[in-house]
Amino acid sequence: MPPDVVETAAALIIGNELLSGKIQDANVLELARTLRGVGVRLLRASVLPDDIAVLTPEIRELSARFDVVFTSGGVGPTHDDVTIEAVARAFGKNVVHDPILTALIRKAYGERCTETHLRMALVPEGASLRSVPDVEWPITVMQNVWILPGVPEIFRSKLEGVRAGLRGPLPFFSRAVLTRLDEPGLKPLLDMVVARHPDVEIGSYPKWFEPTYRTKVTFDARQADLADAALDDLLGLLPELDVVRVE
Amino acid sequence: MPPDVVETAAALIIGNELLSGKIQDANVLELARTLRGVGVRLLRASVLPDDIAVLTPEIRELSARFDVVFTSGGVGPTHDDVTIEAVARAFGKNVVHDPILTALIRKAYGERCTETHLRMALVPEGASLRSVPDVEWPITVMQNVWILPGVPEIFRSKLEGVRAGLRGPLPFFSRAVLTRLDEPGLKPLLDMVVARHPDVEIGSYPKWFEPTYRTKVTFDARQADLADAALDDLLGLLPELDVVRVE
Repeated sequence: MPPDVVETAAALIIGNELLSGKIQDANVLELARTLRGVGVRLLRASVLPDDIAVLTPEIRELSARFDVVFTSGGVGPTHDDVTIEAVARAFGKNVVHDPILTALIRKAYGERCTETHLRMALVPEGASLRSVPDVEWPITVMQNVWILPGVPEIFRSKLEGVRAGLRGPLPFFSRAVLTRLDEPGLKPLLDMVVARHPDVEIGSYPKWFEPTYRTKVTFDARQADLADAALDDLLGLLPELDVVRVE
Repeated sequence: MPPDVVETAAALIIGNELLSGKIQDANVLELARTLRGVGVRLLRASVLPDDIAVLTPEIRELSARFDVVFTSGGVGPTHDDVTIEAVARAFGKNVVHDPILTALIRKAYGERCTETHLRMALVPEGASLRSVPDVEWPITVMQNVWILPGVPEIFRSKLEGVRAGLRGPLPFFSRAVLTRLDEPGLKPLLDMVVARHPDVEIGSYPKWFEPTYRTKVTFDARQADLADAALDDLLGLLPELDVVRVE
C-alpha cells in the first residue's frame, strides 16, 4: 500500500505522570523527527491527563483541524488507561474487541489469557489496523487518529509504521549557520534575509552557555535550493570571522 | 509578599525547533516538578510554533480556563520571538517598553545598547514584574500569564520566582509500590483499591524493560494519610513476594 499523503499533524501525549513531573517525555522528540523525515509538519504536541472528559473533546477537535493525529499512552488494561474509550467517544462510536488483536493476545498469553488481557484488544468500532514492518503488533487507526503506546521503547518500534504509512507533499530541507554574533548584533542582517526569503522558515537560537558560538540560525524549506539561497544570503552579509560553522 | 494561592496551571512551550525535532524539551519536566512541589496542579502542557495567529487565541483560552499559565520561549529580540506580542493581543493590549526592564538593559549593555537590545524590555501594557530571589532579571506577568524564557538554564533560574510566588491550596503527597505482578495480574486488586479510595489518584505504569519489577503503582493525594491508606490497602492485597519496594 503506498503511503497516505498528509500535510499537518498533531500529537496528544497522555499521562498524569508527565504532568506531575515524575517522568520526562521522550516520545514528542521521536515523533517530531519521524514526521520531519517524511515531510509531515507537526504543528502541535499537547500533554494531557488520563481524564476521559478532557481527552474526548480534544481528540475530536484535533482530528478535525489536522490531517493526522497521534496519541501516545493510556492503552494498557488498567483503570487509568482511557485512550481507546476517549477516541471512540470522540467519533460517537462504541468500543469493541478487534478479532485480529484478540487472536494475537490469545496466542501470546495462551491458557493464562483472561478478560483483562483481552482489554488490550479493544478498539473504537470501525477502526482499522496498520501493520508495522518487523513488528507483530499492528497500530490501531481510527479515521485519522493513530493510537500509539506510551512506553518509549514500544512507541519507537511503532514509528516504523508511521514512516511506511505517511508521506508529506514534499520533503523538508534544513540548513544552519553557527555565528559568533549575538542576536542583537545579528538582527539587522537577519531581518533583511527574512524579508527576501518568504518561503523559508528562518529560526534564530541564542546559545548562552556555549563557548564556541553565540547564535544558531536555521533555514527550513520544502526545496533545497530555497534553503541554500537563504543561507547563502546571510553568509554574504556576515563578516567571515563571525561564521563558526555551516551545517 | 505572600504567595498567590492557585489550584490549576497550564504551560505553553513555544518554538518551531521543538516541533521539527531539532531539540528535546527540558522545560515541561522542570516546571511540572516545581508546581508539584508547591501543590499546584499542572493540567496541560502544549508545544506550539512561533506563530502569533496560533498563539494569541491559545493564550486567551488557557488564561480563561486555568488559574495560572506559563509560557516558555519566544522572548528574544529577533523576528521569530513573538510571545510578548501574542500575550498582549490575547488581552487586547499594546506592547510597551517597561521602564524597569529598560533600565536593566541599559545598565547591562551600556554604550553598546541599541533599539534591538531594548526590544527585550517590551511587555504587554499593564503587565507587572515579579522579582526572583538571587536573580536580577524579574519575571513579566500579564494578569495570570507568567512569561518565562525558553533557554533551559535561564528557565530554571526563574522557577525560584515561581516557588516564591505561587502556592497550591494543599501540598501533594506521593507514594508508590513496585511489584512483580504485570498489569493484567494486578488489575483485579487495583480495581478494588481504586474503588475504595476515590480521593487518591492511582496510577499504574508497566515497565517492559526493567528486570527487577513489572509494574509501578503510584498514589497521589492532598493528604498524606489518604495516600498512605490507599498504599496500605494494596499492600494488604498483594502477595508479599510480589512486592519489590515501597517508595
